[in-house]
Amino acid sequence: MAAVLDATLEELGRVGFAALSVEEIARLAGVNKTTVYRRWPTKPALVQAAFERFGGAMLVVDTGSLRGDLRLVLHTKLKLVRTPRGRSLVRALHGEALTPGVLEISRRMRVREAELYAAIFARARARGELRREVDDELLMSVIEGAMTHRFLAHGKLGSNAEANAVIDLALDGALAR
Amino acid sequence: MAAVLDATLEELGRVGFAALSVEEIARLAGVNKTTVYRRWPTKPALVQAAFERFGGAMLVVDTGSLRGDLRLVLHTKLKLVRTPRGRSLVRALHGEALTPGVLEISRRMRVREAELYAAIFARARARGELRREVDDELLMSVIEGAMTHRFLAHGKLGSNAEANAVIDLALDGALAR
Repeated sequence: MAAVLDATLEELGRVGFAALSVEEIARLAGVNKTTVYRRWPTKPALVQAAFERFGGAMLVVDTGSLRGDLRLVLHTKLKLVRTPRGRSLVRALHGEALTPGVLEISRRMRVREAELYAAIFARARARGELRREVDDELLMSVIEGAMTHRFLAHGKLGSNAEANAVIDLALDGALAR
Repeated sequence: MAAVLDATLEELGRVGFAALSVEEIARLAGVNKTTVYRRWPTKPALVQAAFERFGGAMLVVDTGSLRGDLRLVLHTKLKLVRTPRGRSLVRALHGEALTPGVLEISRRMRVREAELYAAIFARARARGELRREVDDELLMSVIEGAMTHRFLAHGKLGSNAEANAVIDLALDGALAR
């Protein structure tokens, strides 16, 4: 079913989520529409599967240190989003970010992303790297949010060096000691 | 010209930026269209002025401590965005966030916002509160970005307590010491 997921990414980048047609995806992939629906009953489920295929490289990250893991996650994401396909997906979805369908996809992707970060933070805690009172989801928001904020502020993706600076700030804090 | 700025906010919340009509704003405010253009030659300039009127309360913030200043900024923003007008502005603009007009407004608002934060950080530096190598814009991105990230993740605005937790994380860092 890789052809279906590839066609989904292609169409999503081309027409966005609202206009995305399972019929057209099936046609492009050369399969029957019912075959697609049987495996992925809803459009958000199909798009999530396509995204997971696209971002597959991010699923296992264990460098042995919290800073290293976070760097690898952000560098990998930046690399993906910098590809032509990544760029068109970002543009296509961002304009619809507050529509129910895209919110549903964002919610699903964030759950996956939170699992990825939770695994990283759990290993860091086991190594004694994190303060006890730090909330996993909040730490993820600080890191992910800063990258998005800078993307929107500058109209372009940050560099790996900028990602490292975000991570350093989140881990070390801004206060003088 | 307060009536013009109020009409701008009203219309912006109703129709968004792309469909915003200076003619309609002038009609609602009971002034001539040329009067509006003389003072605000472009739509982004008009919208920026309207936003500054709306967010006026945030312009002076000096509580005597970095943590206190940042809390006051975020609490004030949350209060504004929680009003009916604030909600409709966020919804209206978010869907157009990557259009040239709204990117221009975002750029202008971020410059203003960066000035607000820079003033806060400058006073904090003078008090010796900030590490030398911390970049003002990066610290702003971490704080503002986390709030937006959580808004998009949860589909609702954070509380003041959540804002405080974001600030604590940005200032103290996540690492155990």
